[in-house]
Amino acid sequence: MSGLRRLVLDVLKPHEPNNLVLAKRLSELDNIEGVNVSLYEIDQNTENVKITIVGNDMSFEDIKMVIEELGAVIHSIDEIVAGKKLIETVKTEQDR
Amino acid sequence: MSGLRRLVLDVLKPHEPNNLVLAKRLSELDNIEGVNVSLYEIDQNTENVKITIVGNDMSFEDIKMVIEELGAVIHSIDEIVAGKKLIETVKTEQDR
Amino acid sequence: MSGLRRLVLDVLKPHEPNNLVLAKRLSELDNIEGVNVSLYEIDQNTENVKITIVGNDMSFEDIKMVIEELGAVIHSIDEIVAGKKLIETVKTEQDR
Amino acid sequence: MSGLRRLVLDVLKPHEPNNLVLAKRLSELDNIEGVNVSLYEIDQNTENVKITIVGNDMSFEDIKMVIEELGAVIHSIDEIVAGKKLIETVKTEQDR
Amino acid sequence: MSGLRRLVLDVLKPHEPNNLVLAKRLSELDNIEGVNVSLYEIDQNTENVKITIVGNDMSFEDIKMVIEELGAVIHSIDEIVAGKKLIETVKTEQDR
Amino acid sequence: MSGLRRLVLDVLKPHEPNNLVLAKRLSELDNIEGVNVSLYEIDQNTENVKITIVGNDMSFEDIKMVIEELGAVIHSIDEIVAGKKLIETVKTEQDR
Amino acid sequence: MSGLRRLVLDVLKPHEPNNLVLAKRLSELDNIEGVNVSLYEIDQNTENVKITIVGNDMSFEDIKMVIEELGAVIHSIDEIVAGKKLIETVKTEQDR
Repeated sequence: MSGLRRLVLDVLKPHEPNNLVLAKRLSELDNIEGVNVSLYEIDQNTENVKITIVGNDMSFEDIKMVIEELGAVIHSIDEIVAGKKLIETVKTEQDR
Repeated sequence: MSGLRRLVLDVLKPHEPNNLVLAKRLSELDNIEGVNVSLYEIDQNTENVKITIVGNDMSFEDIKMVIEELGAVIHSIDEIVAGKKLIETVKTEQDR
Repeated sequence: MSGLRRLVLDVLKPHEPNNLVLAKRLSELDNIEGVNVSLYEIDQNTENVKITIVGNDMSFEDIKMVIEELGAVIHSIDEIVAGKKLIETVKTEQDR
Repeated sequence: MSGLRRLVLDVLKPHEPNNLVLAKRLSELDNIEGVNVSLYEIDQNTENVKITIVGNDMSFEDIKMVIEELGAVIHSIDEIVAGKKLIETVKTEQDR
Repeated sequence: MSGLRRLVLDVLKPHEPNNLVLAKRLSELDNIEGVNVSLYEIDQNTENVKITIVGNDMSFEDIKMVIEELGAVIHSIDEIVAGKKLIETVKTEQDR
Repeated sequence: MSGLRRLVLDVLKPHEPNNLVLAKRLSELDNIEGVNVSLYEIDQNTENVKITIVGNDMSFEDIKMVIEELGAVIHSIDEIVAGKKLIETVKTEQDR
Repeated sequence: MSGLRRLVLDVLKPHEPNNLVLAKRLSELDNIEGVNVSLYEIDQNTENVKITIVGNDMSFEDIKMVIEELGAVIHSIDEIVAGKKLIETVKTEQDR
């Protein structure tokens, strides 16, 4: 398989609907193998979560739609992996 | 299997009933593979524990009920993993 | 198997009987696979050890009895793992 | 196989076309196994991404062409791996 | 097998006989699988070494006798592992 | 096989010919399995790269010749591995 | 096999003969599987290298003779592993 393999998203959302709903809804989309929703920062009305989604040939449009239907917004796409293999970032001499 | 695969909970509880009771009660719920209860901070009357629960299609309602029956309260859900695969969070360039 | 799988104990003890006796006595209990006794801090009359005990369906009462028979006292139970699988604690975004 | 096996590129690009387009376009080139695009820094009009590309006998010219067609520019080539095996950098006594 | 599986010893010794002799003598004891002698600190007349000994049902008395015959003294027993399995210490929330 | 198995070189070079040429030329030498060229520091006219070369019974003379033909100079040989097995450096108590 | 399995040596040497000669000469000794020579510090006339040697029942006398024939001197033996198994040093609570 190819196409989109992993996404890491920084998402701002209201407290409700809660993150259990968000994780389940995302995990039920086509071509999704699993979802990790990690709480990042909590404010009075909002919270920031880091969402890691893994699958094969995932549709970013579907993912974005689920997130926005729940009143949340994608702040940034921190990592994108595409292709036949899941490629990890490499720590180079520039990062030391 | 799918549904809820792993939960990491920050829980505030009285010293009694103790954490052995809490760990055993949670581990005996349906669809739970195992539970890790780690002591985090101790005060005069209360303590904070970090609970990691792994299973397949776990019921958050059951987990919450056990925790609350023992007089404890879920402070925050720090991580949720859902889907066919157990997805770990990824350290991105944004985290460095 | 299920029940208690791993315990991490913070224990305060007199220098004698020594830690070799403590480790051997604990390792000979029923349902215990192995014991690690790590020296933590030494004072004139006492020492602190971190004890990690792994097994299947271990009896906390038996473990506590051995420790107390040797004149030592459990200061705190730092980690409890229970269930069918040995679950490790997860480092979340809250821990960074 | 031999030739170019992995490249790590520091790339400066406009926000649009977005990184999903960039990752997919690169992953569809000949001899490419996978691509990781990690967001590094965001400014008002531009962003820096670290791109890791893995394959066999990859063409740097093709990769450069895709990047430049999307209005981006390769700032530096931080790591190059070539040959029959994927060789990782080694941490020596000089790096400690 | 059971009994004593691993010992970590902090040992103070004269420079002679040297550590090669110490390591070989310990490794030739019954039930010993291997020995690691690491130099820790050097003074004018003495040195500190950290000795890690792995085996099955090892005799602490034999180990102590070899060390003392060579004019060295066990300063402390930093870690003891006993039982059917080699148990590693676990990093808990208390250690962070 | 034996002889030279891995070399880590600190090399100073002009910007041109570029590092892609350097990596490919080195990877095409006899007995070379792979090459990693990592950018280390950039100045106006020169750059420093860390080169890791892995193979069996490699010829240092051949490697040096390629590097010098491209106008670069070996600043230091930071690590050499020779023999039947690839031996990694060990972190000892002296390094802590 | 048993006897000496791994040695880590801190060696002071003149720049010539160079470290390639040193690594090759050591790797050709009987019972040696491999050698890692890592450059540690350079002065005007001398350099310090950390040498890791792995084998079975190695002869320290042979190793020392090669080092001294090349005009170098063993500053300290930082680690010795002997016995049937290659034992790594263990990080204990005392090291944290």
